[in-house]
Amino acid sequence: MQARVHISLKPGVLDPQGQAVESALKRLGFNGVASVRQGKVIDLDLKATDKAAAKAEVTKMCESLLANTVMESYAIEILG
Amino acid sequence: MQARVHISLKPGVLDPQGQAVESALKRLGFNGVASVRQGKVIDLDLKATDKAAAKAEVTKMCESLLANTVMESYAIEILG
Repeated sequence: MQARVHISLKPGVLDPQGQAVESALKRLGFNGVASVRQGKVIDLDLKATDKAAAKAEVTKMCESLLANTVMESYAIEILG
Repeated sequence: MQARVHISLKPGVLDPQGQAVESALKRLGFNGVASVRQGKVIDLDLKATDKAAAKAEVTKMCESLLANTVMESYAIEILG
């Protein structure tokens, strides 16, 4: 079973990577960019065959390792 | 207009970040993990109001800066 986790900085948390990308885009002439935020995506291939069990397991992974829940939020998508 | 770009390593390209996450998950007892790949997600806030124009602009950004098309592939989602 495939799962995808999106990890993004919570609103208000400074995002230097996003700011660097924004500046670089503007330097290249992309002036239509208002703001940029950069996050991570983690694609997991799981042995679990049950959607609910997979989601519960991935939630535990996020809480214990994948996301820093003080400053990051995560969204889990089970792709089946 | 909001756009989201997913950037992931092409299949076959070594992913040391993903491997590190996989090892760490296994060390924590998550033995149901078969493989892990890590990518980036870039959320753009664009001034463009036309979907097609926004997609064309983001494609140009990916080709010129956001993705290293030798080893990375990208997928663009226009969220409206």
